[in-house]
Amino acid sequence: MEKKRSISMAVIKRLPKYYRYLRELDKNDVDRISSKELSEKIGFTASQIRQDLNCFGDFGQQGYGYNVKDLLYQISVILGLNKAYNTVIIGAGNIGQAIANYTTFDKMSFNLKGIFDLNVKLIGLKIRDIEIKDMDELEGFLQEEEIDIAIICVPKSRAQGVVDMVTNKGVKAIWNFAPIDLKVADDVIVENVHLSESLMTLSYLINERNEARELTEEE
Amino acid sequence: MEKKRSISMAVIKRLPKYYRYLRELDKNDVDRISSKELSEKIGFTASQIRQDLNCFGDFGQQGYGYNVKDLLYQISVILGLNKAYNTVIIGAGNIGQAIANYTTFDKMSFNLKGIFDLNVKLIGLKIRDIEIKDMDELEGFLQEEEIDIAIICVPKSRAQGVVDMVTNKGVKAIWNFAPIDLKVADDVIVENVHLSESLMTLSYLINERNEARELTEEE
Repeated sequence: MEKKRSISMAVIKRLPKYYRYLRELDKNDVDRISSKELSEKIGFTASQIRQDLNCFGDFGQQGYGYNVKDLLYQISVILGLNKAYNTVIIGAGNIGQAIANYTTFDKMSFNLKGIFDLNVKLIGLKIRDIEIKDMDELEGFLQEEEIDIAIICVPKSRAQGVVDMVTNKGVKAIWNFAPIDLKVADDVIVENVHLSESLMTLSYLINERNEARELTEEE
Repeated sequence: MEKKRSISMAVIKRLPKYYRYLRELDKNDVDRISSKELSEKIGFTASQIRQDLNCFGDFGQQGYGYNVKDLLYQISVILGLNKAYNTVIIGAGNIGQAIANYTTFDKMSFNLKGIFDLNVKLIGLKIRDIEIKDMDELEGFLQEEEIDIAIICVPKSRAQGVVDMVTNKGVKAIWNFAPIDLKVADDVIVENVHLSESLMTLSYLINERNEARELTEEE
């Protein structure tokens, strides 16, 4: 356990990518892979791969490489994918509905337990057999159900208020789609998906490239 | 222009956050702000803020701080938000529809020009006045329209093929929602939104925290 304490966020962010590539290899019946071969697929250097994986234990064997099935399993445990998580979606607008319909998450043992919205036109509708409930029922719902993750898909003006309420009711992890930096207690984990920031990064890179191109053409 | 060449991806990824906070300040009629005050809001250190912004020019004034409106404008130019971008959405499933309905993007001058899908049940339907077209029409469409960004919302098995086609037709920027690392030519920009990787990061952090908590309780 002690080992995990000093893992940097950069390493953590690379783990799902290892998981994704190893799952593909396993699907294609690849039994073992060297860090060099994995490097060619995944695009990290072989030494980076060895260093990353060494943070979590001794997985590879000199001259053999990694056993794909074993490493895949180990990484899935490290990522906590061997456990099940109960989730609720708060806000059943475009993004909330898309997330509710996203079947991949079920395969990953994220169990959607409820969907909540303010909009009377949405309340009572079903998404994949789960009825959209009135926001007024959320507080009571959280008292009865043990929810691990609240998925926040409400407008930014309401996001902090909703998060204050759900964390008060004991939810300790937030997957946040609202374009706002949430304020939470130290023991609450927030993972953000800020779509508009991602799109701004893209437009920055487009302009940077175009300017570089113009400079080259002028030369 | 020379200045821009060595900007690190870490700085670039922070720019949209500056933009977001400055826009809020401007909306609230705040005229000027010191790096210290901005630091308290945004959560980066004051020296980090000065260092980040110095990458792009001399914005602040000793003893005065930053002029909010001016800095907001400058950052919007750096991010390329003063220009308009024509986009297409490829794949009108859950995520594609959510993105098509996401009105914020319009405010940012991302003009959705077309939506394409294979599914005959979707073709002909309209999302915000834009008819979903048959994928077969995409190639011809790209020949006629100048598209800056293709938004990829197809399943991962089809993503690379679609991207090969659109980049061959001259699209040089991809906003990718498929859970796959795309292979593109050097002059094509790809910005990924990998939702399942984000969710895995969250489950990692939940487990890391729970294990730390168990250790503390044992002590």
